Amino acid sequence: MAQLTYQDLENHYSKFISENSLRKKLVTFWLPDPKYSNLEEDSFLKSKKPKDDLIPLSLGLPNPGFFPIKSMDLHIVDHPFDGKDSKEAHNIASVTKKDPNEMNLPFVLQYGDTKGLSPLLDFIEDFVKSVGNQPLYEEWDTIIANGSNDSLFKIFETLADENTTVMVEEFTFVPVLSAVYGAGAKAIPIKLNIPVVNQNNYQDTIDRPFDIKDEGVDVDYLSDLLDNWSTGPYKHLPKPTLLYTVTTGQNPTGVATYMEKKKKIIELAKIHDFIIIEDDPYGYLRMPKFNRLNPEENLYAMDEFSRKRYLEELMIKSYLSLDDDGRVLRLETFSKVFSPGLRLSFISGNKYLIKQIHDYTDISTRGASSVSQSLVYSTLQTISKRDNKPMVEAWLDWIIQVAKEYTNRRNHILKAAYESESFKKGYFSVIEPSAGMFVDFEINFDSLNGEFSVIEGMNRIEKYFIKNGLGVVLGYKMALDTELSKDHCGLIRTAISFADKPEDLVEAINRLNISCIEFFEKRLESI
Amino acid sequence: MAQLTYQDLENHYSKFISENSLRKKLVTFWLPDPKYSNLEEDSFLKSKKPKDDLIPLSLGLPNPGFFPIKSMDLHIVDHPFDGKDSKEAHNIASVTKKDPNEMNLPFVLQYGDTKGLSPLLDFIEDFVKSVGNQPLYEEWDTIIANGSNDSLFKIFETLADENTTVMVEEFTFVPVLSAVYGAGAKAIPIKLNIPVVNQNNYQDTIDRPFDIKDEGVDVDYLSDLLDNWSTGPYKHLPKPTLLYTVTTGQNPTGVATYMEKKKKIIELAKIHDFIIIEDDPYGYLRMPKFNRLNPEENLYAMDEFSRKRYLEELMIKSYLSLDDDGRVLRLETFSKVFSPGLRLSFISGNKYLIKQIHDYTDISTRGASSVSQSLVYSTLQTISKRDNKPMVEAWLDWIIQVAKEYTNRRNHILKAAYESESFKKGYFSVIEPSAGMFVDFEINFDSLNGEFSVIEGMNRIEKYFIKNGLGVVLGYKMALDTELSKDHCGLIRTAISFADKPEDLVEAINRLNISCIEFFEKRLESI
Repeated sequence: MAQLTYQDLENHYSKFISENSLRKKLVTFWLPDPKYSNLEEDSFLKSKKPKDDLIPLSLGLPNPGFFPIKSMDLHIVDHPFDGKDSKEAHNIASVTKKDPNEMNLPFVLQYGDTKGLSPLLDFIEDFVKSVGNQPLYEEWDTIIANGSNDSLFKIFETLADENTTVMVEEFTFVPVLSAVYGAGAKAIPIKLNIPVVNQNNYQDTIDRPFDIKDEGVDVDYLSDLLDNWSTGPYKHLPKPTLLYTVTTGQNPTGVATYMEKKKKIIELAKIHDFIIIEDDPYGYLRMPKFNRLNPEENLYAMDEFSRKRYLEELMIKSYLSLDDDGRVLRLETFSKVFSPGLRLSFISGNKYLIKQIHDYTDISTRGASSVSQSLVYSTLQTISKRDNKPMVEAWLDWIIQVAKEYTNRRNHILKAAYESESFKKGYFSVIEPSAGMFVDFEINFDSLNGEFSVIEGMNRIEKYFIKNGLGVVLGYKMALDTELSKDHCGLIRTAISFADKPEDLVEAINRLNISCIEFFEKRLESI
Repeated sequence: MAQLTYQDLENHYSKFISENSLRKKLVTFWLPDPKYSNLEEDSFLKSKKPKDDLIPLSLGLPNPGFFPIKSMDLHIVDHPFDGKDSKEAHNIASVTKKDPNEMNLPFVLQYGDTKGLSPLLDFIEDFVKSVGNQPLYEEWDTIIANGSNDSLFKIFETLADENTTVMVEEFTFVPVLSAVYGAGAKAIPIKLNIPVVNQNNYQDTIDRPFDIKDEGVDVDYLSDLLDNWSTGPYKHLPKPTLLYTVTTGQNPTGVATYMEKKKKIIELAKIHDFIIIEDDPYGYLRMPKFNRLNPEENLYAMDEFSRKRYLEELMIKSYLSLDDDGRVLRLETFSKVFSPGLRLSFISGNKYLIKQIHDYTDISTRGASSVSQSLVYSTLQTISKRDNKPMVEAWLDWIIQVAKEYTNRRNHILKAAYESESFKKGYFSVIEPSAGMFVDFEINFDSLNGEFSVIEGMNRIEKYFIKNGLGVVLGYKMALDTELSKDHCGLIRTAISFADKPEDLVEAINRLNISCIEFFEKRLESI
């Protein structure tokens, strides 16, 4: 462990704090008045024995007796898509008044700490360590927020202002730009390497698969851009201090940035002194490589599969695990692996930066819903007890079950896509995702010989999708600079998460296929 | 109803929007591209019949089958401090998958609207109307936030910047200053009329009680300050555009501003063109006048008490009910009448201003915890069914039960205070609260002939409180300008909310009494 102190962190990272957030400090009325900190007790008082039961009329809290709910029972499922509606005792998470556990109902319904409720924070810390994602220094911390949108908002408010340039992946979760622009900052795109399977390279890439080392952030582009900033395309902007990256199952492209590149990017971050904001909502939903020769193969479903293999062969570790000087902020969320309605996320990073986000939280949202925190914690506690394993293992096993189902869905949609007439005719290509909720395709307009621009083409073919009953996201709308990303403007993002069953995805591909054939063939016939 | 349109509101109130919030706009990727809005369908497509079952692969939502909880049972109490732990069917609020009600579990655990879940919003609107708090114009709206701290933060971020002066009551909930200063704005104090009962006027004020019309915001001070701004004490600051007021059961003083004054303040707001931010967390916890001749008297406990009497004789209506041009924003919270751990509050006001707060919410927190919203809604629904009355009536009856218990506590503490030796000797005075969670006392240092300043005195006597096992808040720490508020710097705030039972408050007064006697008598003897 590096001997990095809080003071070291403050010395280095205070220059990153935004103008706007510097004045976001809590004004209190409950602390001792510093003017009178040296006031001595009167001589009479000195001889008096203090009472040991304080009546705390200073606290503006309601007594739990005023709360209208006395207990709460949560009925837990055995596995995702568990159709049973039984109420076995071992599947009930009870949150009661008398419960000896740390998260009893009066505690849950009361005001909670800004940072989060400590049992859940302790679990999170244990979990981060158990999957090997903790940083290489000791002075790190975690704060809970109200979903990753809130995490992002607080991070950019804290670290960005009119003098800030933020690097984001060329295709990105564009609502993040609201937070960047909202803080007054500018965003610039960083190229991604996006491996695309088309009819031409289909066979080749079975024999010689894409090297995953190449996938994700284009490190050469990034390095070149930063090394030659003063003569580059964005020389009119301040040199970037922040890199925002969705590292695994990238939204929208589905690609990942693997460890070898992460190491290089951390080195660049040190050289050029920027902070890495690693947004990883999909990281745990990692997918084994798609086996085109055996499309049903699902590593998660195999007998020999284990948590150990998941951690060693599948999960891509966080930038945090490579961070020895505190320049990584990692965002996770319970939205994708538990439920979005909780509005629960968390941020881990160096204690100085987390303290600044904590200060911002103190004066804005304060702690996230304790009820939501209780739902997560009590569920974890119950599945841990039910399955007779530690909470971190029980939770990882749940995540693995979710990832297994996503992999199954990925298998269905890719198999159907590769078998479709349109793929074979070269009308669209496929991006095999590394993880997460999205499988992307790219429409190939080459055969139209420039009849219209790719973007116009996308808006035209979208009408075919809709008429055929298929809703997708046009990827170019998630590009920061469609000129820079012109090679991939034919991208469509499909979410495999919301469908009721994997077979719906096969039907979706059927509709994609029909739309392409109609667009590329029948449309022309009718002209 | 005034014929105020959205455009009228925008025309008038757009000048109030802060620099900082103007750039807080959501960047989306799911809307149609305006460049191609006129793109026609190809002739082939025109003749094609559209499919009527869309497969929405555009939505990045998890299917509810991925959620680990299948249902939730809430066990509701019969009344505050209900000791029973029985689980009668009529007291169970079940949130299930199949439940036909609008708030079934898959809905609750999914992403929700930024503004709030519509069943709860509908209830809130019904409730606001049923108690007569809706404004005199039609274009008003409500948005849910993550507790009133979050409401305040969003309001000040939206309406305040470096060019803004905010008027606040001379004693106030000072954490609100975090939001004011955090937005870059200045705050100035407005005098309050605080009726104080001391040994000298005790009998007089039984015969001729204080006129409640005088209580609360000092309208003459406010009017004079604004009329003579350019020559007044704050002439170096921009003229105020915002008044922040905790209208009923004011924190910390416990006073209220009644309707007659509210009318005058609304008139001043029109003349001087400022917005009124009415923070009313305690308003429903209204207390009938304390009967010094019959201290146990509790109007809420009387047979003849009714919701009608509560609304007509007790509840002080909102500034909103007087607002015909959209200049009031009202804040309510579920923290004091349901539970703080929910982190649920709401803001009502004109649609243009609510839209700005909505925009801010879209890019920061997004919607509040749906789980918390579900807890409130399902509880209301269950007590409505159990008690066989509409939800708004069932909820008002719950509030009345809470207010009854607070009144009972108020009776206990005031009776003990007035009977205490220290009160009779003039060591402290009493402020009889209008509502809420706080009862204040004022330490009288007159007998010490200026031995030290009141503030030093407060820090000295606090040591006696602590040694005697009593925690209070020193009121001067909640004053904006202790010089302006010097007549009331002896104020202490006691919260009657957190004690387990009313008798604890009697013991607290016993400790206050002992502390005063020790401070004013034994201390002197020992010198």
